Amino acid sequence: MEKVGFIGLGIMGAPMAGHLRAAGYELFVHTRSKVPEALTAAGAIACTSAKEVAQRADIIITMVPDTPDVEKVLFGAGGVAEGISAGKVVVDMSSIAPVETKAFAQRINALGAQYIDAPVSGGEVGAKGATLTIMCGGEAATFERVKPLFEKMGKNITLVGPNGAGQICKVANQIIVALTIEAVGEAMVFASKAGADVAKVRSALMGGLATSRILELHGERMIKRTFNPGFRIELHQKDLNLALSSAKALGVALPNTSTAQQLFNTASALGSGKLDHSAMVHALEAMAAHKVAPDA
Amino acid sequence: MEKVGFIGLGIMGAPMAGHLRAAGYELFVHTRSKVPEALTAAGAIACTSAKEVAQRADIIITMVPDTPDVEKVLFGAGGVAEGISAGKVVVDMSSIAPVETKAFAQRINALGAQYIDAPVSGGEVGAKGATLTIMCGGEAATFERVKPLFEKMGKNITLVGPNGAGQICKVANQIIVALTIEAVGEAMVFASKAGADVAKVRSALMGGLATSRILELHGERMIKRTFNPGFRIELHQKDLNLALSSAKALGVALPNTSTAQQLFNTASALGSGKLDHSAMVHALEAMAAHKVAPDA
Repeated sequence: MEKVGFIGLGIMGAPMAGHLRAAGYELFVHTRSKVPEALTAAGAIACTSAKEVAQRADIIITMVPDTPDVEKVLFGAGGVAEGISAGKVVVDMSSIAPVETKAFAQRINALGAQYIDAPVSGGEVGAKGATLTIMCGGEAATFERVKPLFEKMGKNITLVGPNGAGQICKVANQIIVALTIEAVGEAMVFASKAGADVAKVRSALMGGLATSRILELHGERMIKRTFNPGFRIELHQKDLNLALSSAKALGVALPNTSTAQQLFNTASALGSGKLDHSAMVHALEAMAAHKVAPDA
Repeated sequence: MEKVGFIGLGIMGAPMAGHLRAAGYELFVHTRSKVPEALTAAGAIACTSAKEVAQRADIIITMVPDTPDVEKVLFGAGGVAEGISAGKVVVDMSSIAPVETKAFAQRINALGAQYIDAPVSGGEVGAKGATLTIMCGGEAATFERVKPLFEKMGKNITLVGPNGAGQICKVANQIIVALTIEAVGEAMVFASKAGADVAKVRSALMGGLATSRILELHGERMIKRTFNPGFRIELHQKDLNLALSSAKALGVALPNTSTAQQLFNTASALGSGKLDHSAMVHALEAMAAHKVAPDA
């Protein structure tokens, strides 16, 4: 059985690592702050550095906030690169920039090790329930080697392509999710201001061409005013920033992603930054001086 | 059994009227050009004017292109208003402006007759297959009276609210559909230009939060380059024009609907106006000087 390392034990990482330990994997962990007691009580071994994790584990998973965090944990002082050796695998499950991911993979490959980018969607609920969607980039043989671990953390697991493809897919996901929330928001504010019962409008649209998971879940949140996260606006802002900076580097125009980011900015200015991303509708409501429904 | 009138026998109206006749309704029809022979052969009675239809039928359905066409057919010379009498019902199944719809309903009510706005989605395929989604506005008792006719033409039939609510719902539908197509388009162009296999990206996203009927159907059309309509860009431009002019009247800002309309304009400029609305991706591709896949 592979020895597994897990670096980054935040809201997402802690339950993900817990599932691996519960499945019987020998688990070496490291995090910026303190390793959760539940993990060490379950038998996870706390290491003093990412380097030590890389020395003791065969497959080293990273789950940290952003691109610079991954770079630091892999290539900074006391980082994974200092402890890794040939035949091991780095699996970055953070959501970071696709272009930098390709460079990170090359630097890990140069040390004789393999790299898989494997960002997830599904949030805290998916992490706790082991129902994450996992979008992977890397070589097929390496993917197959890591897949049993993924299956302890998620359900919809896809090898999208070579290194970087997992991160590209995650960015595409976050673009579609944000813009579909925005679409439902425009429709709800329009219908409400026009005097219609938005709950009935939503029901009438479900089942037709306008149907989406977002209309189902986030449309309901807009109507019922249940904006507890879920997935926070401030996190989606980070992801759209990734989309927009990657788009600039690639020479792609993303007009509605750009507007959606501005609407997230407005929602944050209105005090909704820590609410669920469906609270983007606050920005559209502010622009129309109108609420879809009274605040709960 | 109610006597039914049907005014407007175009691509949508002809098969819809055909279903009513096939169900055994005595059917009085009128259209700007020539009544299709299939309808008269099936026993539909061609009338020389909308007025004559209104004189001879109990429930008078209109299915014409735009707001001015409805106004003309209802209130113009030889129109429905000249032939209608107390106890009859006007059912406008065209997709037109919600605000004008309320005014039309009041003018029909003033003649002692009832009014239902009942725009549809599902296009030519839905009209032929009797699987249209029908979004209704009007009084509950009148809706119940007309419902048996709707059930011959569609499947998902909802009374959304009072007069105008059906049209508001249809506008909301067209906003969501256009913006979800745009969202999928941005994600596909981004992923393709970033070097990913867009078909695999689409598969990885299906089942997650980015799932929608549009990702399923229109996402596939973008990848396979199958842009035969479906629903034409030039028709969706009409619908978004309705959304944007209604939004102006209501004091609602629809930032991404506005951009989507501009992208439809660009797609039309590129020669795609008569293609399926998924060809909006041509505009995004032109902006990135990049195609998701080679043209078929």
